[in-house]
Amino acid sequence: MKVIVGSSTFADEDPAPLELLRAAGMEVVLNPLRRRWNEAETIQHLQGVDGLLAGLEPLNRAVLTSTRGKLRALARIGIGMDNVDQAAARELGIKVSNTPDAPTAAVAEMTLAALLSLARDLEPMNRAMHAGGWPKTIARSLPELAVLVVGFGRIGRAVANQLAAMGCAVRVADPYLPDAAPCSFPRVTLAEGLRTADVVSLHASGNAVLLADAEFATVKRGLILLNPARGGLVDEEALLRALDSGQVAKAWLDTFASEPYTGKLRDYPQVLLTPHACTYTRRCRLAMETEAVTNLLRDLGLARSQPV
Amino acid sequence: MKVIVGSSTFADEDPAPLELLRAAGMEVVLNPLRRRWNEAETIQHLQGVDGLLAGLEPLNRAVLTSTRGKLRALARIGIGMDNVDQAAARELGIKVSNTPDAPTAAVAEMTLAALLSLARDLEPMNRAMHAGGWPKTIARSLPELAVLVVGFGRIGRAVANQLAAMGCAVRVADPYLPDAAPCSFPRVTLAEGLRTADVVSLHASGNAVLLADAEFATVKRGLILLNPARGGLVDEEALLRALDSGQVAKAWLDTFASEPYTGKLRDYPQVLLTPHACTYTRRCRLAMETEAVTNLLRDLGLARSQPV
Repeated sequence: MKVIVGSSTFADEDPAPLELLRAAGMEVVLNPLRRRWNEAETIQHLQGVDGLLAGLEPLNRAVLTSTRGKLRALARIGIGMDNVDQAAARELGIKVSNTPDAPTAAVAEMTLAALLSLARDLEPMNRAMHAGGWPKTIARSLPELAVLVVGFGRIGRAVANQLAAMGCAVRVADPYLPDAAPCSFPRVTLAEGLRTADVVSLHASGNAVLLADAEFATVKRGLILLNPARGGLVDEEALLRALDSGQVAKAWLDTFASEPYTGKLRDYPQVLLTPHACTYTRRCRLAMETEAVTNLLRDLGLARSQPV
Repeated sequence: MKVIVGSSTFADEDPAPLELLRAAGMEVVLNPLRRRWNEAETIQHLQGVDGLLAGLEPLNRAVLTSTRGKLRALARIGIGMDNVDQAAARELGIKVSNTPDAPTAAVAEMTLAALLSLARDLEPMNRAMHAGGWPKTIARSLPELAVLVVGFGRIGRAVANQLAAMGCAVRVADPYLPDAAPCSFPRVTLAEGLRTADVVSLHASGNAVLLADAEFATVKRGLILLNPARGGLVDEEALLRALDSGQVAKAWLDTFASEPYTGKLRDYPQVLLTPHACTYTRRCRLAMETEAVTNLLRDLGLARSQPV
């Protein structure tokens, strides 16, 4: 059986996931272009393959239909499924999977990294010192900060636990969390939480805008905003206005409505920007690739030949 | 009784320590210059005062003798006592104290902040994105890193515990730690530890140089060096050579042999620089100032009038 890899960096840092595939008897074709495929390239590369380890290439109905029943499984290396037409896959009998567990630790770690950097003024102090200054200012320590965690899925839960362990006062807003679900933090509505939080950390799914002008008008002045979840959760024009007015003092954004990001937030030194890189660590890539390979082999009816 | 404050930022962020002094019946004079005093200014300001809340102004034998027995207690707001001639103070009957406990949490937090920033490439990604790029590179997660903690006093211990909780493999080097002292981490010599650590974090006291050319030659290539302890622990010229050769890949320095820092490390973008600012948070300043006021009132024979 033949497997192709859409992700451009698969096994770059650690060959173990590739070896898992080969040990199961698969013929493996790595992404020959070393970049994301467009639709025509995706159709071309999927001809004659049984399985796909998918990156963010377009896997719409036209692409999936073009495989004429040969493609039986696609395994996303990652959480997001916006590039996959899951209804079409179901109709065509293509099994679909993603890796919801592997990114959790790396995203929570990056969220902590960004909050510490912003709260402790690391970036402005470093910039001023490299420019010849000695900028002694009083920053904030995590135990001084009340954090609203928006979205209490795997990642929101990990972030809440980690920030509470660092001394933050954590509250949680998640309208989809059942009342009976275990949650060791006070639960509030988004509106209620926004009024008192020093930090708002977004870990929601979906494409609804959660923060726009109306919400920024109600936040505690000087808010720190963190968004490693989805660019579309924040109205960017409203965020720019909130930064201009001081309602939002600092922000970290790892996700953007359109990527690669080329917008105006790049002109704001108080905004920390990273390129959708929360899962870009050796450890996390290995965990995600291993989880995706395991899913793909299962969906192709093959057991993994060895424990990892 | 009269107390003068040498520290230039005392009670700026929170008036509680000042109120403690006044509640004990003290007349309080805040630093009128709002900057560090030189020797002549220190002599001038100490005339006629009973107690000093000391910053980093020179408190040498000449200065202490000039107070002619009136000054009875000096309380450093901070840990370092390099600016205080403790032998002269003892001879003159001036009680001396510092605040060894209050800075621990803030220094450990800043060390974690700096390590996360360096390991996850926050600063270079942010810089590249503000310059128009979309720099997706694979960084390191804390559980991938073996950390050597050098010095296992209050701060080294807090750092070791915090980094272990984040998933780092921690080892400890401290020749002054008794063999029987409790330490839940493997203990190694400095030489042994340097050979295998991905990260070396300095938390030693004293003025001996711990890292010079000979030591940098033995470290695992690509080391991350953290120094929030004392600038003199690292031979700066040797560090520059180790950065040039790649033996040291990244570093964070908060302390320098001469401050304010004006040296060549400012030309190295892979070096994160902060201005001796580990204790510069609202929470930590309040804790240090409260601890110093408590020490000063005790040494002047006054009980604190209220619990904090």
